[in-house]
This record gives sequence, structure tokens and C-alpha cells, in this order.
Amino acid sequence: MTDLADAPASYDDLKAVFLNCTLKPSKIDGFSHTQLLMDKSADIMRKVGIEVTNFRPVDHDIAFGVYPDMTEHGWDVDEWPAIQDAVMAANILVIGTPIWLGEKSSVCNLVIERLYGFSGELNEQDQYAYYGKAGGCLVTGNEDGVKHCAMNILYSLGHLGYTIPPQADAGWIGEVGPGASYGDEKEDGSGRVGFDNDFTNRNTTFMTWNLIHTARMLKDAGGMPAFGNQRPKWADGERWGFDENGPNPEYR
Amino acid sequence: MTDLADAPASYDDLKAVFLNCTLKPSKIDGFSHTQLLMDKSADIMRKVGIEVTNFRPVDHDIAFGVYPDMTEHGWDVDEWPAIQDAVMAANILVIGTPIWLGEKSSVCNLVIERLYGFSGELNEQDQYAYYGKAGGCLVTGNEDGVKHCAMNILYSLGHLGYTIPPQADAGWIGEVGPGASYGDEKEDGSGRVGFDNDFTNRNTTFMTWNLIHTARMLKDAGGMPAFGNQRPKWADGERWGFDENGPNPEYR
Amino acid sequence: MTDLADAPASYDDLKAVFLNCTLKPSKIDGFSHTQLLMDKSADIMRKVGIEVTNFRPVDHDIAFGVYPDMTEHGWDVDEWPAIQDAVMAANILVIGTPIWLGEKSSVCNLVIERLYGFSGELNEQDQYAYYGKAGGCLVTGNEDGVKHCAMNILYSLGHLGYTIPPQADAGWIGEVGPGASYGDEKEDGSGRVGFDNDFTNRNTTFMTWNLIHTARMLKDAGGMPAFGNQRPKWADGERWGFDENGPNPEYR
Amino acid sequence: MTDLADAPASYDDLKAVFLNCTLKPSKIDGFSHTQLLMDKSADIMRKVGIEVTNFRPVDHDIAFGVYPDMTEHGWDVDEWPAIQDAVMAANILVIGTPIWLGEKSSVCNLVIERLYGFSGELNEQDQYAYYGKAGGCLVTGNEDGVKHCAMNILYSLGHLGYTIPPQADAGWIGEVGPGASYGDEKEDGSGRVGFDNDFTNRNTTFMTWNLIHTARMLKDAGGMPAFGNQRPKWADGERWGFDENGPNPEYR
Repeated sequence: MTDLADAPASYDDLKAVFLNCTLKPSKIDGFSHTQLLMDKSADIMRKVGIEVTNFRPVDHDIAFGVYPDMTEHGWDVDEWPAIQDAVMAANILVIGTPIWLGEKSSVCNLVIERLYGFSGELNEQDQYAYYGKAGGCLVTGNEDGVKHCAMNILYSLGHLGYTIPPQADAGWIGEVGPGASYGDEKEDGSGRVGFDNDFTNRNTTFMTWNLIHTARMLKDAGGMPAFGNQRPKWADGERWGFDENGPNPEYR
Repeated sequence: MTDLADAPASYDDLKAVFLNCTLKPSKIDGFSHTQLLMDKSADIMRKVGIEVTNFRPVDHDIAFGVYPDMTEHGWDVDEWPAIQDAVMAANILVIGTPIWLGEKSSVCNLVIERLYGFSGELNEQDQYAYYGKAGGCLVTGNEDGVKHCAMNILYSLGHLGYTIPPQADAGWIGEVGPGASYGDEKEDGSGRVGFDNDFTNRNTTFMTWNLIHTARMLKDAGGMPAFGNQRPKWADGERWGFDENGPNPEYR
Repeated sequence: MTDLADAPASYDDLKAVFLNCTLKPSKIDGFSHTQLLMDKSADIMRKVGIEVTNFRPVDHDIAFGVYPDMTEHGWDVDEWPAIQDAVMAANILVIGTPIWLGEKSSVCNLVIERLYGFSGELNEQDQYAYYGKAGGCLVTGNEDGVKHCAMNILYSLGHLGYTIPPQADAGWIGEVGPGASYGDEKEDGSGRVGFDNDFTNRNTTFMTWNLIHTARMLKDAGGMPAFGNQRPKWADGERWGFDENGPNPEYR
Repeated sequence: MTDLADAPASYDDLKAVFLNCTLKPSKIDGFSHTQLLMDKSADIMRKVGIEVTNFRPVDHDIAFGVYPDMTEHGWDVDEWPAIQDAVMAANILVIGTPIWLGEKSSVCNLVIERLYGFSGELNEQDQYAYYGKAGGCLVTGNEDGVKHCAMNILYSLGHLGYTIPPQADAGWIGEVGPGASYGDEKEDGSGRVGFDNDFTNRNTTFMTWNLIHTARMLKDAGGMPAFGNQRPKWADGERWGFDENGPNPEYR
């Protein structure tokens, strides 16, 4: 089939960060169902030359709070800033989370709060610092909640300044009720649960490529055009066509 | 301040559709708080030459269902297809909704179902038909729920194939509890409620420009690059680097 | 096993209303996957003497809006009030909905808006009119979203004044991706999809009995005790122990 | 006005636990906007003799995970079990959370995961251990998200086994955009922000009393009646009227 060399562009100047928001520290249990799915996406990226860095935030001593470095706000330790640096250096961010009670994990919630803590920063064009990057998410559970988690994570990323490509999420869940998780060995020994789910595989692939295309497009354009979206200029009175009193409403 | 002629590109080849999902038919009450905010965004687009078409779906006899034309599925009347045609001809879609009980309106829900009914269609590049378009939303209520509504609407648009620019939503709500709605005359006669909310105004402006930039970028690129995201090719066995058995998990 | 006559009380003075929010009018297609699940719950109620009335709102010409009778607000037709009457006469309300794009149906959204339109009414004890009733929901889809839909529906019911019993929702979804819906004939002819899902069956049963117990308890108590929850008394200055300036915060 | 001695029952045998899910440890900043609102509810409860215990989970070294005691699953420290003990001894649970990016806090998410970790336990009647208790929540932010947070928290509590009384949530948010938080001193020195919000005050009062009434009713009834909701009996084949093959669907 397709040679990856036939891709419409080259991507080896791009970087991606994957954050696996499992609740399990590696030192207790290195295995993570969510990581298995994340690795499939990262694998495609690596094959086209993208530098992928994967973090498991629960392995780090991350403070609660909404400032870039919580050691400046009373915490003794905060290992978040190093992750933030990697996120800022990357063109693509993929957040992975397990589902508990239909909801993203608390670690995922913590990660989003910390990313949000950096949302006051601006880039060289005076836009929010996350502008010009592409964001997506991967969600695994055993029965329900992929879309619920994804809509919240993607909304948060968009709110921070990420561009969200089409179909920027994928995931796997099984039939409602208790059951196997993604990547568990099947009882009949015929392989791993979910690995042969065509929908999950296709969506993961589409998400991955749409992230790559969007990151490529944004980088080639020098980021999101800096017009109509710079906070300091707005504060200075610039309005870029916005009329506070609105258009003449006569036609209504 | 800025001359709109200084914008980084021209936009007069772009089209936008605004769908105001108020529950009130025009013939009963032409006024709509949500429309007031939508008009501010549309106003900017029109100033830079974008052709904007505004629909109020509740004015139309739209069938319930998830097929492109419900008259082919038993309904006597279905005025949705004309709206769908306009949506497909446009580069930008903005959905506006009021909030009731913290939730988007039922008309908004209906609109999303009908847009979803078209998601089986493909474009000339064999991608989902909504690929290459930019989507956003505007939400008004009197006390709570902008983000809740926005995250669901934007997720649905992304799921359909829209690209979601940074900060692609805006809205207005007042302090919790009963109170004035967006655009109501203030009791002291000093103007309209919400019109002087700097946050709403700025977000509406940023949303509008980010939609414009994203639509411009996508149109100039001939849409989202067609590689790694075509359903028929996936069905034929193309995988674009995806490996069902994943990368070697040894390092885990 | 258990004789239903061993139930801890009798229930033949109770009434329940089931609202099936499918998008399909009966005259087009009488079959509804969601109805199949709702019937299992209603069946238990009927066996213990509860009078169950089932509506399929999409079969009725229901106006959009948030007033009890929209014909008083400009609409020519509004068949909602008859449904509202049944809801108010019942001790239990169960809302059933299919899932589309991870979300409850637009008909469900419409139903909630109309129920909300009645929330200004008070009962004989000057409480909100829905006080003293028990509410639950049933959700079916083919892949994802039971909890997302349920949390919204149950929250709306609680906000209106319903008491929400433990585990007041149940549903069925299959593995992520396209697939059979609840009650479809299995390909191998061995029965109907989901009917043998122990989790769905158990949750449906528990939901049903918890609704019954809660409705029984509330009716026996003459409703929710009228103290601390009456709007007119609050408006008259009654505070039932609430201190606007809060307790002395010294210990903080 | 009313003497609390006129309340329809006595409550001094009841216990309540309040969990304040702020992100700020007391040792860094003892002040918490959310606590201010929680104290108003707790104040009413204390006035009628209910024993209220308040925890600030972020002050404790709580492990991530979904088991009752994570020290049995590889963590060195886990201070959750003492909180769990208090929760199990109480008739009422109130979760308080701030809002960040429209979402409940990560600490709140963590608390729910830990509560969920105990959901496998059964009470003396073989029901889920949380049966027979009443749950509610209080949410504060500066602009948006009370209902979004509340619907998720209340759903989780209901899923665990709590009964959710009518209008079991309250909160305060101001107009959209940056601004003061609940309890901040007003700029004009006229008092504290939100303290004079009639809606917040009324809802907090109604929530508090509905929790009290529901807890009273449940305790007096000896919990939720044990019929139709016991997992071990279901596992043994008991069905309490549920018919897997459903009622005869002929009438459909």
C-alpha cells in the first residue's frame, strides 16, 4: 500500500508530546491500557520523523494549583515545569486518559489545570502561548465515556489556544458493564482486546494524521495569523472590526 | 486604529453560515438575545467581504431524524435540506444557542442531529464532507452554562469534520440567578446588558478572526490534506503507518 | 425465587409516566430500541400494581418554548399540556432516550425544556410542583454516552424538584464503533442484542425498585417535608437558620 | 420568623461530612472561597444539632487510585481511609468544589475516584454501602460552570448509592469574564461578593434542608428498603419481577 514517503509533506521538524494520565505510577505497575493506544498514534508520528516525548504525569510530584510553578506559591516540590517546557516546545499535544465513573482521570484534570496555569503567557506575536499548536486526545475505558471525556479535554485545549483538527479524538470501550480493558489478553488467547476494533484503529489513524497535517499547516504559516487575536492590542483599544454597539439591528 | 485593509489576506471568496438556535419563531417574536451576539460576529465577517447567511432553524419545519432528507424516511415535510446546502457551500459555520437549564436548546440539539445525518457523505478527496471547514459557537444565557454548551457543540462539529480554531466560542452570562439577558435594556437606561462586557467582546472578536484565519488557511491548502484520513481507502486496507499490533512494547 | 407479594409495601396507589424520546414517530416506525428497555422497567412496575402510562413525545405536535402551554405564547398547536398533566399526576417519571453523537436526543432536550416550563408552579405546600416525586432515566445507544446523557437528564429532574434515588439510571451500549442496537436480532439468531447483558438487566431492575421505594417513601411522608424549601416564605423573609453573613469564620 | 424548634423532626442523631475540594492547602492559604459557602450550609445543619465534620482533602496526602486503601496497592502513604471512614459514618455528604476552566477541581475528581473505590462494599442489607445516605454539592467560581460541575458530582454520588434530594446543589458565579470570587471584599467596602445573592442563598438553604429531610427519612426507614437492589441476591438468580425477555411486545 502507501509508502509513507508519499505523504504530502515532510514532518521531521515537528515535535509532539503525549501525556498519559493513568492513575498508576510506573514503579507500581508499568502497564497502562491507555499507553497501548497512545503508542499506536505515537508510532505513526515517529515513522514520519516526528520527535515524540511521552510523559506519565502520575510518576512526577506535581503540585495542585493554577500557576506555572507552584514552588513560587508555597509548595515545596513541583515537577510540572519540566513537562510544561516540553509541551511548549512541541507542535502537537495528545492527552490520553482512562475513564473512571464515566469521567476523565483526576490526573488528567490536574494536567489541564496546570496547562491552564500557563495560559496567561503570550507568544512572540502577542497571542496566547498555545496558539499555533494542534491538540488531540485518546481515551480508554471498559464501558462508557469516550465522547464525554474527549469533549471536555478538547474544549480545554481549544480554550488554551490549540487548534483542534477534525476528529481529533479516538478511544476504545467495550460493551456496557464490567469487562476487559483495552489491550488485555483475550480469554481465548486470540490476541488483545480492542486491537482488532476497526473503528478505534481508523479513528486513531485519522486523528494522528489530522494532527500532523494541522501542525504542518500551522508551522508553515508561522502560527495562527496575528490579527484580531492579540490581547495586549485589544487592551490598547484595537478592535479589528468589532463594534460594541453591533450592526444596525433594523433588519431584525 | 487598524485598517481592516491591513488584514493579512483577503476573504471575499469565503462564505459563512450562522444558525441561531433560539426557541422563538420570528413570527412570534423577532427579537433574539442570541442573535444580537451573533450579529456582532457576522458584522466583522461582512466587513471583510465574507458572505454571511443567517438562519433561524425554528422558523423552518424541520423533521426529527438523522438522515439528510427525512421526506425520504416517512416525514411529509422537511425544510432542513436547504439549510444543509448552505452549510455545505460555506467555509465557516457558527452555531448560536440560548441556554435553558444549563443546556443548549433543543433546536440546537436538533440542528446537530441533522448535520450529523450528513456525516456519511464524502468530499471529492474521499474525506468526510465537512473536512476543510472551520466551526465555532456563540452562547447566551442569563446565568450559567456557556462552556458546558460550547464544549458539546464544538465537539460535535469536530466529530463531523470541522476544524476548531483556538478559542472558537464566546458568550455572555450574568451573575448566577434570575436576571437580564444579553442585550436587554439596562434598568438605568445606560445601554444594553452585556454590550460593555470586555471579555465577551474580546472573545467574540478573537473567535471571529480565528475562524476567518482557519477558513482562509484551509481553503488555500485545498482543504485538509488527503492522506491518512479517507474512509474508503481505509476500507480498502490502506493504513498510512498504523500498526494494529502496535509498536514493540518492550520498553514499557 | 421471591414472590413479589413479599415486597415490603404495596404500590397499587402509585402512578408512573414513561417518556420515550426516540426521534422516530410511531406512524413511520413503531419499533424503538429504547422502548424495549423501558418496557422492561415498566413491566416490573405493572407487576406490582403501579399504573404506568407511556408517551412517545415525537408522536405529538409539541411546541418549542419554556411555558406550560405555548398556544398562549403564539403557537397554533401545542400537544404538550396533556403530557404535563400526566406527569403531574404521577409519582414516578422515567425518561428514555437514544444517543446520537454521544448526546441525548433533541426530543429529550425538548421534553426537558417543557418540563422546565412548569417549574414555576407550586404544590399545595408552596414547594416546587415536582417535589415529592421520584425520577430516573434509561438510555440506549450503540457505542457510547449512557452516563453523559444520564447525568444531564437526572440533574435536570433534580433541579425541577424530583428526588433521584440511588442508581436511578440504566442503559445499554455495545463496543465502540458501529454495531447493533439494543434489541436487534443477533446475527446468529440466538436472541436479541443486549437482552442477556447482566449489567444492564441488574441496573434496570435496581433503578426500577429504587424509584418504587423512593416514591413510596415520599408519598407516605406526604411529600418532601415543607420546611426550609418554600419559595414564597423565603420571599417573605423566612430563612430557616440561613445566615447571610455566615457563621463566624474565626476558626478558618 | 420561624423558630428552628418548629422543624418537623429532630436531627441531632444525624452526621454530615463536608469535603472542600479547593486546590489550596491550608498551610499555604487558609482562605477558601468555596469554604465560605460550605460554611453557610454547615451552619444550618449545626444549628439543628447535626454533627458536621469538614475536610479539606488537599491538606492530606491522598494517593491516586480506585481502591479503598492504596497502601495495599503500592503507595507508601495514603491518608484517604480516615476520610472514607468519616464519610461512611455520616448520613449526609456535601462536596464543595471551585471551578477551573468550567470544570470541577482535580482534587474533587480525585475525591470521587476514591469514593468510587469503596463502591464494591456492601452494607448489612447487602446493598451498596452508600445506600441510605443523602448527597449534595456546592460550587463556586467567578464566571461559569456551576451546573456543569454539579451534574457530574451529583451523578457520581447517585451512582455510588446516594439519594439525591430535590435541588441538591447550589453555587455562586459572577458575570462572565474575570472578576471577583465568592466572598471577596467588594471594592466599595459594602460587604462580600455574592453574600447578598438571593438566588445563591435560597438555593443553599433549600439544598441544606432537602438533604436534612432526605437523610431523616432514610434513617427513619432503616435505609433504602432492601428489595430489588441487592447485588448478591441478583447474582444468586433473584430477579424481583425483571423479565429478561421483556413483556410481550405485541402492543408496540
